[in-house]
Amino acid sequence: MPMDPTVAAKAALDPQNFALANCIRALAIDGVEAAKSGHPGAPMGMADAATALFRNHLKFDAANPDWPDRDRFVLSNGHASMMLYALLHLTGYEDMTLDQVKNFRQWGAITAGHPEYGHAKGIEVTTGPLGQGLATAVGMALAERRLAAEFGADLVDHHTYVFLGDGCLQEGIGQEAISLAGHLGLGKLIVLYDDNSITIDGPTSVSFSEDVPARLRACGWHVQSCDGHDGKALNAAIAAAKAEGAKPSLIAMKTVIGFGSPGKAGTYSVHGSPLGAAEATLTKEALGWHAAPFEIPADLGAQWRSIGARGADARKAWQARLAARSPAEQAEFNRRISGTLPAAYDAAVKAARDALFTAPKKAATRKASQMALEALTPALPEMIGGSADLTGSNLTRVPAVDSQYTRESPGRYIGYGVREFGMAAAMNGLGLHGGFIPYGGTFLVFSDYCRNAIRLSALMGLGTIYVMTHDSIGLGEDGPTHQPVEHMASLRAIPNLTVFRPADTVETLEAWDIAIRNRHVPSLLALSRQDVPQLRLEAGTENLTAKGAYVLRQYGQGRDVTLIATGTEVALAVEAAEALHGQGLSVAVVSMPSWELFEAQPEAYRAKTLGTAPRIAVEAAGKFGWTRYVASEADVIGMPGFGASAPAERLYQEFGITKEAIIARALALTGR
Amino acid sequence: MPMDPTVAAKAALDPQNFALANCIRALAIDGVEAAKSGHPGAPMGMADAATALFRNHLKFDAANPDWPDRDRFVLSNGHASMMLYALLHLTGYEDMTLDQVKNFRQWGAITAGHPEYGHAKGIEVTTGPLGQGLATAVGMALAERRLAAEFGADLVDHHTYVFLGDGCLQEGIGQEAISLAGHLGLGKLIVLYDDNSITIDGPTSVSFSEDVPARLRACGWHVQSCDGHDGKALNAAIAAAKAEGAKPSLIAMKTVIGFGSPGKAGTYSVHGSPLGAAEATLTKEALGWHAAPFEIPADLGAQWRSIGARGADARKAWQARLAARSPAEQAEFNRRISGTLPAAYDAAVKAARDALFTAPKKAATRKASQMALEALTPALPEMIGGSADLTGSNLTRVPAVDSQYTRESPGRYIGYGVREFGMAAAMNGLGLHGGFIPYGGTFLVFSDYCRNAIRLSALMGLGTIYVMTHDSIGLGEDGPTHQPVEHMASLRAIPNLTVFRPADTVETLEAWDIAIRNRHVPSLLALSRQDVPQLRLEAGTENLTAKGAYVLRQYGQGRDVTLIATGTEVALAVEAAEALHGQGLSVAVVSMPSWELFEAQPEAYRAKTLGTAPRIAVEAAGKFGWTRYVASEADVIGMPGFGASAPAERLYQEFGITKEAIIARALALTGR
Repeated sequence: MPMDPTVAAKAALDPQNFALANCIRALAIDGVEAAKSGHPGAPMGMADAATALFRNHLKFDAANPDWPDRDRFVLSNGHASMMLYALLHLTGYEDMTLDQVKNFRQWGAITAGHPEYGHAKGIEVTTGPLGQGLATAVGMALAERRLAAEFGADLVDHHTYVFLGDGCLQEGIGQEAISLAGHLGLGKLIVLYDDNSITIDGPTSVSFSEDVPARLRACGWHVQSCDGHDGKALNAAIAAAKAEGAKPSLIAMKTVIGFGSPGKAGTYSVHGSPLGAAEATLTKEALGWHAAPFEIPADLGAQWRSIGARGADARKAWQARLAARSPAEQAEFNRRISGTLPAAYDAAVKAARDALFTAPKKAATRKASQMALEALTPALPEMIGGSADLTGSNLTRVPAVDSQYTRESPGRYIGYGVREFGMAAAMNGLGLHGGFIPYGGTFLVFSDYCRNAIRLSALMGLGTIYVMTHDSIGLGEDGPTHQPVEHMASLRAIPNLTVFRPADTVETLEAWDIAIRNRHVPSLLALSRQDVPQLRLEAGTENLTAKGAYVLRQYGQGRDVTLIATGTEVALAVEAAEALHGQGLSVAVVSMPSWELFEAQPEAYRAKTLGTAPRIAVEAAGKFGWTRYVASEADVIGMPGFGASAPAERLYQEFGITKEAIIARALALTGR
Repeated sequence: MPMDPTVAAKAALDPQNFALANCIRALAIDGVEAAKSGHPGAPMGMADAATALFRNHLKFDAANPDWPDRDRFVLSNGHASMMLYALLHLTGYEDMTLDQVKNFRQWGAITAGHPEYGHAKGIEVTTGPLGQGLATAVGMALAERRLAAEFGADLVDHHTYVFLGDGCLQEGIGQEAISLAGHLGLGKLIVLYDDNSITIDGPTSVSFSEDVPARLRACGWHVQSCDGHDGKALNAAIAAAKAEGAKPSLIAMKTVIGFGSPGKAGTYSVHGSPLGAAEATLTKEALGWHAAPFEIPADLGAQWRSIGARGADARKAWQARLAARSPAEQAEFNRRISGTLPAAYDAAVKAARDALFTAPKKAATRKASQMALEALTPALPEMIGGSADLTGSNLTRVPAVDSQYTRESPGRYIGYGVREFGMAAAMNGLGLHGGFIPYGGTFLVFSDYCRNAIRLSALMGLGTIYVMTHDSIGLGEDGPTHQPVEHMASLRAIPNLTVFRPADTVETLEAWDIAIRNRHVPSLLALSRQDVPQLRLEAGTENLTAKGAYVLRQYGQGRDVTLIATGTEVALAVEAAEALHGQGLSVAVVSMPSWELFEAQPEAYRAKTLGTAPRIAVEAAGKFGWTRYVASEADVIGMPGFGASAPAERLYQEFGITKEAIIARALALTGR
């Protein structure tokens, strides 16, 4: 059968590009058919653009996928995963074997339904939750520019490419990313927009009629439009985007979803379901594709492998430039990229500890966090900070991290604007790029706004650090919209996230130390607005916060009752314990800055710390979850529901989070 | 002292407007000073615009604040709350007394730090979390248009006004709302943008440099710019915005934050802190204000009260138009506004129940949800549905709710696009407006994206209904980015939200019935992708889901072990119980579709249902929180961490959520 005439007309625009793109389309069709699930439409529509990018522009060397100066390729519309797997397989990434492609979406395969970071080289980021790929790519572009400023353009000079669809542009986080990238003039960020006029619910006209190019121009972007099936036009557009250095670029590509499918192209039915055997056959005929399933004709396969090797010389030249640097420069560059800490770091931690034991401080834990940052960041040029427009509240800015990241000069402090979700995803991108330990602040209650990016930090195993201040009703007058209640529980429920609620200056420093050292688990610090006394006063080198919980105070011999508390309520528990001891009870106060770290301790340690006496938990937060450690929620001195607007002291009284309430419950439990 | 010359120049533009606006400024200054906390800057900057709006345009009658056809006024930058309280007080809202204004931000006052819905008439929505006021207002405008189409423009014909600042425009949800409003041509939505060039972190140039008017024009908005301190210009701009019926309007007002403060105007220091006594005095002098704190000169007070009464005639005329309708029309309009259910509803529920007991069905609970909607929506014209671009997956569209809400015709089904957060906030707005029961769908994992709007539904006490499908690893191949794990726990942690995870068709119908009846608590239905058998087979009229948990099956006399399960795992627990009974154990299977409803039951019922035998919980979700009902997480058959990409059956096996695992644990606990 001859090629479909519409297809043939497109093919004629750049026959070689078209033939190579057909390899992607064929693998996407076959992969989805074999899995009996998946999304063939987007890979088929974007294959020509991906081919043009990989053939002529993308700087990479498939044999050395970790080359630090490679271009980053982000598939923000992650459901198009088969396109990425096909590209990696075709260009010769070692781990992306044909077997993996055939096992698309199966248990144990690296070819998951959506691209999962860590499964295979070449998957630069986990995508699927829409909009976040773009926002993460903004972080990568931020990283590239800052690292280039630190180490020179001969070592760091690459682009970040993003493919995305309508969904990424409809999601609010997309706009946050667009606005920030435009504001900071991230000229090396190049976005290819798969403008196929189709969403899951039908034509985009159902819900999306804005002028995307005009919106992005309004946000300071360089915008082009082109035929997404014309290799030459795509090639020219990408070249023009690369030539624009001061603005991020959008290339709006008019494409046909499911390109080539006689019965389904251009319809939403090809978005998220296999073509079906019959339509798959017809589609291949229409595309002029005659190979068996999962087979790539030898000449095309060879062309693709040569594309995969195209960057080898550039990589070698880069390696030579690195080797030409001084040994110290090489070591520092390699240290930064590998994510190991500098030798000076340990000393900085020790000095900061010693200072706290020498001159104990009463301070809000947000202030303690600032003190920790002041002490540690001079030793850590990789730390890059910021806030979602709450710098003066989060106290995230310190002298070593004070230079503003601007369009003109990429400093160490990023004004993310009122864009919590965009900030969190950008921090993930800074971490993924390599060379940085990102941290950023907002109010704990607004962890809601960026929650799915925190989840992705955890799922990807990235050491992103979230500085979340104003962690309870202790924030006072701003009222219930700003008072976290359910947030501690809801964050503790996220797997692979370490949540800290430190009690004082020492625990805050210890939490920071753990967060900084842990490059594969994200950390979230819940910090107070209000002052707390320093409770840890005996000098010691052991990081007790690393145990998650420990006996902070012991009153009397043995135990009649154990008070477990976190954060600002540890001081309250200590007061109550002193009073109870005055009434003849033996009391242990357990400070529990991190549930996750405590759960990781040996059973014997946990049992000894918790003890067998009745336990009471004290936390100015919802009670949900505390039954892990106490018999029932009646033994939790915490919040019964949402907060209220009033001065903090009044709120603690009204909601019954008081010394008296702890004492009363302890007496009831011990039968006194 | 004479008025500050800069201030005087502005005052001269519209002296009367300026004088009235000074009443707002003075109260804002005094309220914040008295509270020693708050945000004076925005009220001082926006006072002229608010005055122009209330004086000449806003349709309201302070003596009848519940008038259904009043214009809605939304303060999206909720930190400017003192402006709203001042307006309500000045125009004569009965409950907004001077004492309340003086008690700003104090325990028990209705004048919270941010406006709290339900505290006082005239507070149309809780605001503070930025961007959501705007998105909620979009819902109000959607409601107005639909209700007008149903009942006629003589009964429903009002505007929705929004004040907002840079923060609302930086937040992603702002763009979601803007894009949707533009797409649907919500011409009666008018937004006044307080363009003061200041954010908390300093000048907006730190993080925000886009061309806002151009962005909104690209999204189909009518855009004007004007001097935000010129009453006449504001008046004209609002009039022009009202004249534009086909597009939502933005009026970008150039304002000075803290207008009038000699030392702090135009700086971020006036954003979130009191002026201080000395600066307050200087500011009043500069404004030409000579009254004592909290005092309003008699003539200005009288003018404001007459503004508050300005709409009385219009309200009476409206009342007459309503009275002229047929009794049936009046009754139906009043029913819709009051949120009571129609007489036919009970019969619809009963018929749907009977049908399930007559012909039991094996179905995914998302399908069961669709069946429930099919059965109930014909009796409920107030139900208005939608999905964030997952209609075919969420199964939210049914014959009675099938008419698409378009620019041309406001139907009952809203294509929200890939905008979960915008959808959730818009649903809150539909509910706040009155006349509607909104429901909308997305995947459960993407509850993350709209989490803070769910929180606001709960905080405001709105009966918004969230249809969240694909509720576990049961969704299979899409992989861990799409598989909820921590979501059940994190949603159960939110106060005042009823979370359902129904087990079968009957429980799903019952959950819908509860959700529909409960107009003051939001409901979230976690629904499966995969089929489950109908477990409830004995006909009965009692809604057992309303008890939260109940003994679904009892095997043998007494109890050796109790299996508690939710959703799709109830069927698994039943299988395990049958096997255990075969081995000689007495087993109760407790289906627990809603923790919150169970907790609301009498202690005796709870104790009897849970029993005293060892308990095992079964849920394809994280184990966090289950210690409320079982002794330790070792007794939870659930997910140990994130999911994976593979067919669902394989995932259940690999993660150990199996009949065999339940049996093994039961045997271990009972010592068999």
